[in-house]
Amino acid sequence: MQSPATYSFVAGASGTWRIDRIVAVTGEGLSGADRLDVQQQDRRATSIVPTWCLRGVVSNTRYSMRSELSGLAERQAGLGRVEATCAALIPIRKSAAWWAMAQDERRAVFEEQSRHIQIGMGYLPAVARRLHHSRDLGEPFDFLTWFEFAPQDQPAFDAMLAELRSTPEWRYVDREVDVRLTRA
Amino acid sequence: MQSPATYSFVAGASGTWRIDRIVAVTGEGLSGADRLDVQQQDRRATSIVPTWCLRGVVSNTRYSMRSELSGLAERQAGLGRVEATCAALIPIRKSAAWWAMAQDERRAVFEEQSRHIQIGMGYLPAVARRLHHSRDLGEPFDFLTWFEFAPQDQPAFDAMLAELRSTPEWRYVDREVDVRLTRA
Repeated sequence: MQSPATYSFVAGASGTWRIDRIVAVTGEGLSGADRLDVQQQDRRATSIVPTWCLRGVVSNTRYSMRSELSGLAERQAGLGRVEATCAALIPIRKSAAWWAMAQDERRAVFEEQSRHIQIGMGYLPAVARRLHHSRDLGEPFDFLTWFEFAPQDQPAFDAMLAELRSTPEWRYVDREVDVRLTRA
Repeated sequence: MQSPATYSFVAGASGTWRIDRIVAVTGEGLSGADRLDVQQQDRRATSIVPTWCLRGVVSNTRYSMRSELSGLAERQAGLGRVEATCAALIPIRKSAAWWAMAQDERRAVFEEQSRHIQIGMGYLPAVARRLHHSRDLGEPFDFLTWFEFAPQDQPAFDAMLAELRSTPEWRYVDREVDVRLTRA
């Protein structure tokens, strides 16, 4: 009950999501595959070797204030909506300079300078999301964010990404891949 | 270079630290063993079964402001001092109520109400420490703190623990074990 839930994003021949395209936004990309399966388990100890497997945990919030969490909770939609047949998996790694900052310095870049939470808020409830923390697991990325939205909201989703990628926070992103999917 | 270092605290028949006593401070304790070995690796995939093994990663700071990190950096001593022949391993788990709080609420309890950093600062450089994060790894504890000090500083170390345990922050600690050790 206490431990954060671990999710594995498994790319290979099977899975409930069809991979439409994989774009290397910054740094090294990820290999192509037909399908992606999202599993609520740690798939490290498996015998079947997937094309790639990324793991992350749904952990506690790191930057959000109570007022921000309340605002998000009021507006956000859950995953698994029938109409949300489009998805994106965006793995991100931040630089050593980001991680060397103190909490107040990271918060200032994240929200006061970059308005990360406020930008995301503008796209609710159309875009549903779940953030997974990977850094402490020794994974190749620090975060995996999973988004779900309806086909007609894809332009809005792309606009949100463009807004976020233009912020001061994104100067600290040294690897980013954009994986787009359709429910199979 | 980027990934946080993982440490394993392995209790059993061998190791560089002799276990003097294990006290269950809050909740379930840990089994007795003769020795503890501190290994800079993830010991999950081993064939030798230890009495117990706790894992944690030296990750980024979560609450410290830049001014506090600078103050700590000026005063703190490193691990491995020849005279620091005493050690303590203190695994802690915090309640669901703690983890449900927003960042600003946890920070307020941690420092503004409990003076966690300020209390620790008062015992520098006598007490050296390293904090390991375990929660995202699915471990039984959320944090493992490792302390080293000289025998004559043990009363000061005990006073520091008593101060911390009397704070509002500690109302959120629902499991705590105190393992005392001597360099073998």
